[in-house]
Amino acid sequence: MDNLTTVFVSEVVGTAMLILLGGGVVANVILAKNKGFGGGWLLINFGWGLAVFAGVTVAYASGAHLNPAVTIGLFTSGLDEFAPGVPVGIGSILLYMGAQLLGAFIGAILVFLGYKKHFDAETDAGTKLAVFSTGPAIRSYGWNTITEILGTFVLVFVVIGFGRAEPAGLAALGALPVALLVVGIGASLGGPTGYAINPARDLGPRIAHALLPIKGKGSSDWSYSWVPIVGPLIGGALAGVAATALLPVL
Amino acid sequence: MDNLTTVFVSEVVGTAMLILLGGGVVANVILAKNKGFGGGWLLINFGWGLAVFAGVTVAYASGAHLNPAVTIGLFTSGLDEFAPGVPVGIGSILLYMGAQLLGAFIGAILVFLGYKKHFDAETDAGTKLAVFSTGPAIRSYGWNTITEILGTFVLVFVVIGFGRAEPAGLAALGALPVALLVVGIGASLGGPTGYAINPARDLGPRIAHALLPIKGKGSSDWSYSWVPIVGPLIGGALAGVAATALLPVL
Amino acid sequence: MDNLTTVFVSEVVGTAMLILLGGGVVANVILAKNKGFGGGWLLINFGWGLAVFAGVTVAYASGAHLNPAVTIGLFTSGLDEFAPGVPVGIGSILLYMGAQLLGAFIGAILVFLGYKKHFDAETDAGTKLAVFSTGPAIRSYGWNTITEILGTFVLVFVVIGFGRAEPAGLAALGALPVALLVVGIGASLGGPTGYAINPARDLGPRIAHALLPIKGKGSSDWSYSWVPIVGPLIGGALAGVAATALLPVL
Amino acid sequence: MDNLTTVFVSEVVGTAMLILLGGGVVANVILAKNKGFGGGWLLINFGWGLAVFAGVTVAYASGAHLNPAVTIGLFTSGLDEFAPGVPVGIGSILLYMGAQLLGAFIGAILVFLGYKKHFDAETDAGTKLAVFSTGPAIRSYGWNTITEILGTFVLVFVVIGFGRAEPAGLAALGALPVALLVVGIGASLGGPTGYAINPARDLGPRIAHALLPIKGKGSSDWSYSWVPIVGPLIGGALAGVAATALLPVL
Repeated sequence: MDNLTTVFVSEVVGTAMLILLGGGVVANVILAKNKGFGGGWLLINFGWGLAVFAGVTVAYASGAHLNPAVTIGLFTSGLDEFAPGVPVGIGSILLYMGAQLLGAFIGAILVFLGYKKHFDAETDAGTKLAVFSTGPAIRSYGWNTITEILGTFVLVFVVIGFGRAEPAGLAALGALPVALLVVGIGASLGGPTGYAINPARDLGPRIAHALLPIKGKGSSDWSYSWVPIVGPLIGGALAGVAATALLPVL
Repeated sequence: MDNLTTVFVSEVVGTAMLILLGGGVVANVILAKNKGFGGGWLLINFGWGLAVFAGVTVAYASGAHLNPAVTIGLFTSGLDEFAPGVPVGIGSILLYMGAQLLGAFIGAILVFLGYKKHFDAETDAGTKLAVFSTGPAIRSYGWNTITEILGTFVLVFVVIGFGRAEPAGLAALGALPVALLVVGIGASLGGPTGYAINPARDLGPRIAHALLPIKGKGSSDWSYSWVPIVGPLIGGALAGVAATALLPVL
Repeated sequence: MDNLTTVFVSEVVGTAMLILLGGGVVANVILAKNKGFGGGWLLINFGWGLAVFAGVTVAYASGAHLNPAVTIGLFTSGLDEFAPGVPVGIGSILLYMGAQLLGAFIGAILVFLGYKKHFDAETDAGTKLAVFSTGPAIRSYGWNTITEILGTFVLVFVVIGFGRAEPAGLAALGALPVALLVVGIGASLGGPTGYAINPARDLGPRIAHALLPIKGKGSSDWSYSWVPIVGPLIGGALAGVAATALLPVL
Repeated sequence: MDNLTTVFVSEVVGTAMLILLGGGVVANVILAKNKGFGGGWLLINFGWGLAVFAGVTVAYASGAHLNPAVTIGLFTSGLDEFAPGVPVGIGSILLYMGAQLLGAFIGAILVFLGYKKHFDAETDAGTKLAVFSTGPAIRSYGWNTITEILGTFVLVFVVIGFGRAEPAGLAALGALPVALLVVGIGASLGGPTGYAINPARDLGPRIAHALLPIKGKGSSDWSYSWVPIVGPLIGGALAGVAATALLPVL
């Protein structure tokens, strides 16, 4: 495979893994009759953090963005190359984002297959949608967007920090630091909006929800769908800029 | 000891450790009067993940498969040697699987001894079986098998990913990455079937349940027993093939 | 930037990150209508521990104190330099502490913005204050101070221990050891006072609480505010002295 | 300090740290009015695991046994030296054990001081004792001893396994592997007896309970006190022997 194909496949595979496990833990906790039903917020936080752990691990060939907000943030931080032989540019940015969206869509379908009988057994349409996409605890597009900006800013800013703080040491930990970071963002900033912090994570599964033959499904809530796209993109872009100003290269 | 004996002993010891701690956490959470009674799904997930951590640590001499689905997946991924001086082949595959089954059987007996008085105090026969073997939340052999395929695919695919992503770095983490991965699979894909994701983990303890003199025990549910064998073997085999196609050697 | 400016910026950024995530998890768990509402003490412990993880990661340029008690403890332990080119002295101590207080103040404002609608929806004034600052479970200034001394002693003593136990090895773990340590201190010593163990963590947000236009807010409880300042400073100073006596340099 | 004094101080300090945090998490979860009250078994498991993390970190100078069962197990495993210049022998074994008991006694006093007002507020005498020492869920000296043997066997056997599996790599993780192992043992084998798995951890605090002026305290339950001494010593000794037979030096 050439470099661009390798990157595309890697992002598809990694984001599908991310959503399979991330959507999976939500399904386990909120869909009727599951063994993890009612398991609580920390279980969801660890589930998503370890989804990142698995997804990032298998997407090593592309640098494991798995998230358009990360791609944008690395761009605004002034990175030269996303991966060996893949220079930063409009084309490569679109390549990453397309792969992420496709991977998230595939991952959501796999969650549906893994939890098929529990989707059938669940009677609440809103609960079914919540397995796929995020929604606000208190609907307020402006404040919801601010919360998503904050969460994504933390994600991208600290990820860039990992690379500058202890490059050699932290590399030995593989995907563990970013996994722990995502556990923390969920615990600390996930309350109001369910921490999309990733446009592909939200949009890909929302499209899957709209297309899949889910028994008794309701609206895909498209009126909210722009918040987890716009907020994370702003947060990621700001983080790249802020990192340039605030995180010195030692 | 020669190489084959070393491998056999290592897999027996590691799988017994895995089941002692894995069955143990289930006993703690679901058997009457335990201090961890009702401790929740995340406790079970961490218990099983750390069971893998301990089991893999002590089975270093055999490469710590502890799971026929891992052995199959490494085979289909095209590995040459399971351990130094132990080439991949029908004979060595059967050696690994036999040792895993024996180890799981021994581990289940140890769980029974460690929780003897709590088995006596428990009145529900189904709860007793659940300490030993997995069962579905909603019985549907086809969909249950699909869930087991998905969970095992993730396990084997990401384990192979660990080796390709950061071989030197991640080796320094020992058994930690696979332990975290199993916490994540349990959180995210364990809801419908209790994540056997390992034929030996389910069959060995089920045989122990059938043979042990457990007060007031009921059926060993043999009608379901093929699902956690067939699903994981398919998932592991597919993961080995997929890894060859999707996880480049850099 | 010169060394002192770098240090100042680094401590502001790191402490703001610490409080954004630390205050955030409290907001998520205790403010009405959040997705993490009622998520429990372990969720709070992990939230704060991972807040430390993120804050320490991005404050690498200053050695990541983020806490006047750590600064004092490193001083009493006999350290020569806080960071390359920044000798230990009254001036640098005040520089660190000022930056920490400012960072904590900024972090608290960000928590308010991220959870704005949930502050509006919450009716209990004491709950709102608890997002910002610590308060005792049983008010007893003397015993509360002792608890804060103990918790901070553990923090600073073990942090110094990290540096002496396995300097090279643990450096590879980055901010992970101190993050885990803070999870542990919260679990084990956080019951009576909510583990401030950091004067800036408590005072900065308390000032923010006093100044911010929070709907329906009550008292900032200034009568208790000296406990989480004095206790941690004593605990940190004692830990530095004790480390000199009890933690040999091998 | 000479080698023996260094070892003695190190074990006292490490075991006191272990019990301060280990007893502390129990106090937080079970004593009235604490912020962590009712926090659950996983919180206790993480509290104890991170207590080990902190205690082992600061006891690097002695090899951080902190537990007579570990000392015995290293002896039966055929170790030559406990620490540089400290050969294995009756004298050094007694030195370690004496230091561990003293450290545990000191740690228990510190827990009492940190939670003083909560001991005063608690009305149940059995709950107060449970902060100090373990007790069985179902009293049965024989089966309780077997459970303690199993838990301690796992602890010592896997600790020896850490040293043989990946000596260089795992050393970089410092105290993290043993901390995680203890989280796992608590989750999986702690249900019936509360996992003493360490004679000093149980006896030192029990003596403190007997001597301290605790308001409304009851019996120190000396009739059970031999179980968490004898069980762990047997389990540790067996683990050392088993490691010699089953864990090859590669």
